[in-house]
Amino acid sequence: MEIVVVGSVALDSIHTPHASRERLLGGSASYFSLAARHLGSVGVVACVGDDFPSEHSTLLEARGIDLLGLARCTGATFCWEGEYSADLMQRRSLRTELGVFESFEPQIPSTYRHAQALFLANIDPELQLHVLEQLPGMPLVAVDTMNFWIEGCRALVEQVIARTHVLLVNDEEAELLTGISEVSRAAPQIRHMGPEVVVIKKGTHGAAALGPWGWLLFPALPLAEVEDTTGAGDSFAGGLVGYLASRSWRDREAFAEGLAVATAMASLVVESFGVTAIATDRREELISRCALLRDAMRFDAPAIP
Amino acid sequence: MEIVVVGSVALDSIHTPHASRERLLGGSASYFSLAARHLGSVGVVACVGDDFPSEHSTLLEARGIDLLGLARCTGATFCWEGEYSADLMQRRSLRTELGVFESFEPQIPSTYRHAQALFLANIDPELQLHVLEQLPGMPLVAVDTMNFWIEGCRALVEQVIARTHVLLVNDEEAELLTGISEVSRAAPQIRHMGPEVVVIKKGTHGAAALGPWGWLLFPALPLAEVEDTTGAGDSFAGGLVGYLASRSWRDREAFAEGLAVATAMASLVVESFGVTAIATDRREELISRCALLRDAMRFDAPAIP
Repeated sequence: MEIVVVGSVALDSIHTPHASRERLLGGSASYFSLAARHLGSVGVVACVGDDFPSEHSTLLEARGIDLLGLARCTGATFCWEGEYSADLMQRRSLRTELGVFESFEPQIPSTYRHAQALFLANIDPELQLHVLEQLPGMPLVAVDTMNFWIEGCRALVEQVIARTHVLLVNDEEAELLTGISEVSRAAPQIRHMGPEVVVIKKGTHGAAALGPWGWLLFPALPLAEVEDTTGAGDSFAGGLVGYLASRSWRDREAFAEGLAVATAMASLVVESFGVTAIATDRREELISRCALLRDAMRFDAPAIP
Repeated sequence: MEIVVVGSVALDSIHTPHASRERLLGGSASYFSLAARHLGSVGVVACVGDDFPSEHSTLLEARGIDLLGLARCTGATFCWEGEYSADLMQRRSLRTELGVFESFEPQIPSTYRHAQALFLANIDPELQLHVLEQLPGMPLVAVDTMNFWIEGCRALVEQVIARTHVLLVNDEEAELLTGISEVSRAAPQIRHMGPEVVVIKKGTHGAAALGPWGWLLFPALPLAEVEDTTGAGDSFAGGLVGYLASRSWRDREAFAEGLAVATAMASLVVESFGVTAIATDRREELISRCALLRDAMRFDAPAIP
């Protein structure tokens, strides 16, 4: 096992201006693992209820994702229902039923202990700490969080961040953590809290990463059709962490390549509903999107007179 | 004369959360010409009143900007007063007094007729058309416009755009022109209206350009201190058009380098009030910012297994 993710596996009901779909495979661990699986072997630590459709676990297994860490509990699977605005830029939660996820206690299978990379998706920071204690000395610990936890249990979030190598946040979360609205000044502040690299996700505006090598700045790929932006952040993380797991992730070149893969992965997933676009072999498509991104970003030093 | 700009020279009174300054040198032609002057010779076509401070014309002349096309009329110089929000992202006009600019009739000096590039800043599209008639066969015509003209006299704006090589708009203007909110779909639509290249300016989120070679995507440089964002768009245009004037601007490599210079120029100008940061020789600084941008954007093709 190269990559381990601890997060949620959920049933998503999604309403966009164009369509509605019920009880799709969702949750941070689903998106992350399907994305990371394009880059390496992945194990999932999460829990589902006894109502979890077998077609969803079959899909994950068919992709070769290890489900030894996926607990099957008595009760209902975590259900989320959300509605998107006309431009898909805003979303509103209509329903969040935690079900068995409310009493989730991540148990890490012993076969996961020698993984190269751990992704702690957006879950209770108390659970994130619990996982970190079970997996000491992980070569790469990447962490996601959200405003809910930063506002609700800041001290715990700070403990997690102190043990994080790569922190992924969006611009709002960066501001909540530091009180600074400009990403350019918030990111160095966050690095002082522990992480060697801070990745700021900006949705359609791309991503910026600050590490020991300085800034890496990645625009998002322009897309003709966006169908459903659910899971874009977790797919981005899956592309990044999946790529870095088998590499010297502290290396600037590897990190920049990882951000390219992450950008390509996020551009792919939003073009279809749910996990569809990343649930099959998309190697050629990922390669061609990375090439497209490179063509859009490369330039030589301008000759200034 | 390599580069000609037709636009406004104004007196700006600017209020930011940190400071207020009165009757600074402002206007699209001032910012554009000072930016473009780092790349080539520039002539300004604009008008000022008899109250225009000699220190402002001295500053432009000291930079070697040709003012043969700057008409001095009887009356008051165009005055603008604006106030910025706490994060400098929004601004509100407090006062706009057109003065002599209201009856501006651009007269092009004959020495400007063999310029390599013309920039039509954001002025009445009727005047833009009038200039285009006076300067037929210009190798590069770059144009800026704004929502006011698109909404008020769309037919004229479309006539201008049909004769434009490179159109610079922001994301809102792109939507107004096409009715499409996604930049990725609006830009190809705008190219059908005439321009070979459409540049979408996105402020702190950078810029995207669509040309015959596909997309070029440029993030903005992260800045520690932003003091005054007035003139950022015109300075960006000055960097781009100034760089392209002496090059084969249809060439993808030249255009990408031009966007890098434009990005560096915009990052420079917003760090000080008014035109201050671009009103002296900043060659070394521009080179180092382009290098910084390159370090933040370059990556090799990722090895996807």
